[in-house]
Amino acid sequence: MTQSQSEFQSITGIFPCQVHWGDCDPAGIIFYPTYFRWMDAATWAFMESVGYAPSRMREEHLAMPLVSASCDFLAPAVQGDRCEVRSRIARFGGKSFVLVHEIVRADGTPLAKGGETRVWGRFSNGPGSPMKGEPVPETLKAKFRAK
Amino acid sequence: MTQSQSEFQSITGIFPCQVHWGDCDPAGIIFYPTYFRWMDAATWAFMESVGYAPSRMREEHLAMPLVSASCDFLAPAVQGDRCEVRSRIARFGGKSFVLVHEIVRADGTPLAKGGETRVWGRFSNGPGSPMKGEPVPETLKAKFRAK
Amino acid sequence: MTQSQSEFQSITGIFPCQVHWGDCDPAGIIFYPTYFRWMDAATWAFMESVGYAPSRMREEHLAMPLVSASCDFLAPAVQGDRCEVRSRIARFGGKSFVLVHEIVRADGTPLAKGGETRVWGRFSNGPGSPMKGEPVPETLKAKFRAK
Amino acid sequence: MTQSQSEFQSITGIFPCQVHWGDCDPAGIIFYPTYFRWMDAATWAFMESVGYAPSRMREEHLAMPLVSASCDFLAPAVQGDRCEVRSRIARFGGKSFVLVHEIVRADGTPLAKGGETRVWGRFSNGPGSPMKGEPVPETLKAKFRAK
Repeated sequence: MTQSQSEFQSITGIFPCQVHWGDCDPAGIIFYPTYFRWMDAATWAFMESVGYAPSRMREEHLAMPLVSASCDFLAPAVQGDRCEVRSRIARFGGKSFVLVHEIVRADGTPLAKGGETRVWGRFSNGPGSPMKGEPVPETLKAKFRAK
Repeated sequence: MTQSQSEFQSITGIFPCQVHWGDCDPAGIIFYPTYFRWMDAATWAFMESVGYAPSRMREEHLAMPLVSASCDFLAPAVQGDRCEVRSRIARFGGKSFVLVHEIVRADGTPLAKGGETRVWGRFSNGPGSPMKGEPVPETLKAKFRAK
Repeated sequence: MTQSQSEFQSITGIFPCQVHWGDCDPAGIIFYPTYFRWMDAATWAFMESVGYAPSRMREEHLAMPLVSASCDFLAPAVQGDRCEVRSRIARFGGKSFVLVHEIVRADGTPLAKGGETRVWGRFSNGPGSPMKGEPVPETLKAKFRAK
Repeated sequence: MTQSQSEFQSITGIFPCQVHWGDCDPAGIIFYPTYFRWMDAATWAFMESVGYAPSRMREEHLAMPLVSASCDFLAPAVQGDRCEVRSRIARFGGKSFVLVHEIVRADGTPLAKGGETRVWGRFSNGPGSPMKGEPVPETLKAKFRAK
């Protein structure tokens, strides 16, 4: 089976963001951990878009801790740049899933392309208590599937 | 002259923002320096709203370094809360100005009220070079004056 | 009663820190919310120095949420600057306390002077659950008292 | 030539760090972009250890912008954890270099393992001006070579 066949056909989430003064470094361009902050926030927004808002995640003791994260930096961004993070599910594993995030400036310039591998998990007794991975619910997968 | 008489009659800038997962601490509420990050970004957006976008600030070597900052925390915010920072100029000094920032949740709850005192300055030779305070231009003051 | 009489005679906590590349902005100097991050970390370290390490705070469901924070910025700091935060208790209230933080560069230059007013509180059921203020224990006050 | 043969034999840089309250998220563990902030600071410290302090980098208009970054998260860290980042040069390219960073807790537990690919570059006219890649000086490579 080729990779393109196994790749999950995902809807795309859109997370708007902007490069602020404090997101930049003395070189006058974005400080790179900012992209990871954005990717994390974009993932939460993507989950909210399919019915899993932060409040629901809290109430149901759900978590999505990271296994790994990576990012290629394609072009520098400067203060004031309006951007969006375009997020897709690249793959669902048993208890994990892989997100791809493309960060694009308002003029269409790709700034960065990143990925996150996360576990789908549940706290035994609310945030701060031990967390265990759980199979990603089929109903959740279905919500991310492109029609 | 009483304080209310001397207070500058300012327009109000609106900076929308949201509490993200990474903005919160293990108590599950916003980590307080986040409010100062928002206040700084709100100030830049307020300047942009009167014609001083980041790109212009850079080209004209303008800066607005801080003299002091403060914030009262009125109610806790949690992940997902949509907020706005409402910024006003409280006072113009010779080479400085005072901003007041009210941070309000979408449901109208005041979350925090802060202030910043800033110098209006110019870098001698671009960012990173020495900076000197300058009188705030009357044309700039006029743009912030409520009609 | 004058202020100096009512002022608590506090020991001083020392929190070493350094200005990193990502702590600075395009002006090449420290981004000011960094000072508040340091003040927060310095407070936790100060508590640890008198026997209240983060692990104990967690186990006993203790918290110290902020009422207000402020800072005067005295001199700019640049990447690489080695600093320390010198923290003292300025005052104990019934269920609150006030900290003063002086941020000093290794060459003795005062960079900033800030303050935090905090509540002494306890979560009803661990982090994330509702928190209520409690009287600051006399045994805790005693640990901060200069001999 | 196999990879092990081409791997650069590097000295190891040590960057001590600690997980602070504000570095953690509502799950009570480190917010993952913190690791990238540490890796960036560790790289600067590693450069300083071979004679390239931030002040020298500034004076000589040197920069080391990122091409890519990645991290595997091996174990969760909590507030108070004392750690160190152990950095090595994995490879020198013509105008680029690859760093490997191992983040280890004081008890020896590996927390994360990351990598950064950076360009060795120079600003045409100080920070903020355009930057161009340059061949990594042989004298610099020699300083990182394990004896």
